[in-house]
Amino acid sequence: MVDRAPDLRNGMAMSVITHVILSGGSGTRLWPMSTPDAPKQFLPLTDARTMFQLTAARVSNSTRFARPIIVANGRHADLIEAQLREISIAAAAIILEPCARNTAPAIALAALEAGSDAALLVMPSDHVITDEASFHAAIATALPHVEAGWLATFGIAPTGPETGYGYLRVGESIGAGVHRVAQFREKPDLASAQAMLSNGDHVWNGGIFLFRAKDYLDALASHAPAILAAATKSAERAIRDGARVHPDADAFAASPSDSIDYAVMEKADRVAVVPVSMGWSDVGSWDALFELGAKDEARNSVIGDVRLASGTGNLIRTDGIRISASGVDDLIIIASGNEVLILPRGQSQNVKKFSS
Amino acid sequence: MVDRAPDLRNGMAMSVITHVILSGGSGTRLWPMSTPDAPKQFLPLTDARTMFQLTAARVSNSTRFARPIIVANGRHADLIEAQLREISIAAAAIILEPCARNTAPAIALAALEAGSDAALLVMPSDHVITDEASFHAAIATALPHVEAGWLATFGIAPTGPETGYGYLRVGESIGAGVHRVAQFREKPDLASAQAMLSNGDHVWNGGIFLFRAKDYLDALASHAPAILAAATKSAERAIRDGARVHPDADAFAASPSDSIDYAVMEKADRVAVVPVSMGWSDVGSWDALFELGAKDEARNSVIGDVRLASGTGNLIRTDGIRISASGVDDLIIIASGNEVLILPRGQSQNVKKFSS
Repeated sequence: MVDRAPDLRNGMAMSVITHVILSGGSGTRLWPMSTPDAPKQFLPLTDARTMFQLTAARVSNSTRFARPIIVANGRHADLIEAQLREISIAAAAIILEPCARNTAPAIALAALEAGSDAALLVMPSDHVITDEASFHAAIATALPHVEAGWLATFGIAPTGPETGYGYLRVGESIGAGVHRVAQFREKPDLASAQAMLSNGDHVWNGGIFLFRAKDYLDALASHAPAILAAATKSAERAIRDGARVHPDADAFAASPSDSIDYAVMEKADRVAVVPVSMGWSDVGSWDALFELGAKDEARNSVIGDVRLASGTGNLIRTDGIRISASGVDDLIIIASGNEVLILPRGQSQNVKKFSS
Repeated sequence: MVDRAPDLRNGMAMSVITHVILSGGSGTRLWPMSTPDAPKQFLPLTDARTMFQLTAARVSNSTRFARPIIVANGRHADLIEAQLREISIAAAAIILEPCARNTAPAIALAALEAGSDAALLVMPSDHVITDEASFHAAIATALPHVEAGWLATFGIAPTGPETGYGYLRVGESIGAGVHRVAQFREKPDLASAQAMLSNGDHVWNGGIFLFRAKDYLDALASHAPAILAAATKSAERAIRDGARVHPDADAFAASPSDSIDYAVMEKADRVAVVPVSMGWSDVGSWDALFELGAKDEARNSVIGDVRLASGTGNLIRTDGIRISASGVDDLIIIASGNEVLILPRGQSQNVKKFSS
């Protein structure tokens, strides 16, 4: 059970929100820096703090939020505790998944942990949001609808015809800044993405959700009862060790593996979207990181022990090996441990040739 | 004093030649693989054997040659002995220079060590000669003139208007395949190099010489007496430790620092050149090494732990760090120890921005 504190802003008592951080990603697209032992979310890629730390701190300064619940891979438990300690945040619970079953079962464990009345703000541990004020405003916009039983998602204004994201078609208005989701669209082909972009009625599905635990669990009961049953049984048999929660492995392994989008959001009745422009990025590639990062006057983004004598538009990062380059343009050069990756910018998807 | 053995080829006794290997180069142009502790000549850059080993072995299979004299930096003594042991060659002497005074004093030490009647074949330790038969033929061509007191050099047929080499203008014929050197030309500007190339009467000065020790020492006495005096005094006071010879440091330090070209060859009277095409390269840059090396069907030259998914015309070498690259063309990527160098091919002279 998580802490509660009243928030009397707006002259009325509002729900305290439990921040649920999903740390399941393996981050192979940012190899060689991101590795199974230290995936992307635990690296300081966009800031002196790691992406997990930025995520945990994102809503920690408001009395509207209770202590976070983390759902993570067991091998990262020590890393999570150490990184939370560095930013002086205490987790309500660190739920260590015995195996990976995608987001729907993971969020079910968090919902059962938080208690049915809790409002849950669910977000991945490895996204960047540069405009936190807009994010907080969007949460405030969604909250009354959440308290009325809606499952809310946040729609990111698309900046290009990305084929790597899911899209939402924004439907009828159900309140100031809040719309019904008319349709979910999985990762589209380029032509479909371009059509959605030019129509202007679609937003990216950023994977950030706000709903009451009981409404999510009710939706699971209706649309994915096997997930609910497995998660419930696994949670009932969980072993606790301080903040660490070890759900029962056999029970959890019996759950279907499915995303919250497929299992719940696409099927539930009252699903709302709050479109928001908040400097969101999933930092899903070295190219994305180049776009996010600070650049010098020659549009180079350089971090670490790097000597770049000349050249423009390069992303160069190292955590140890010294990189010396001259006369190269628009390259991605990443050194980590005993590995060096070299690709042209714009081709960072080719990291998959090496990372698996 | 070095071994002698009669060679009765051609029906007459010919001089036994002492091979003098100059290992003074610091090899900064092949950084980061070449370093002060293990410069270029001690690396296996073009073959499983190092360039020093290839040089030592180049004339070892002929009874015409006595055991070699090496002139080297003292810090490389162990490396030299180990590399000679690997190829079963015993040096007559390893002369360890107490300080660097360029080639004229270094060769003076070797000449004094070999004895005045010896014929010396002097060559740098870090050049490649792929056509050894032509080289041996050129030596045989030069030898009668050397025995008549000429100082001989070998002229490399130019393959382009290189500005990094010295040139020789080929003068009158003094015998089959042997000419008087009409003029020495130091490293020219590009226009001069192009003019010499199109005239067809110039060859590169490859830095390989053949002469009797006494003729070299006589020329020093005439044209650079201070070098001869310093080398003689340093050699007289040398300390010997097995094959290792430690010339007196103070005496050697008193020598002017000058190249054999400036101090002797440009000034002496009877200087001959044997033009020869023998696959010579000074391996003076990563670009030169790319041209020398074996390439795959996409014109990539790749050595070491390298994964190249796609790309053409790259030189990629590593002695440890794993390099993963995709979609890159015409790059030089060199990893050694904790260093990675990345340059476009054709710009390898820019290594000097990093190596010093």
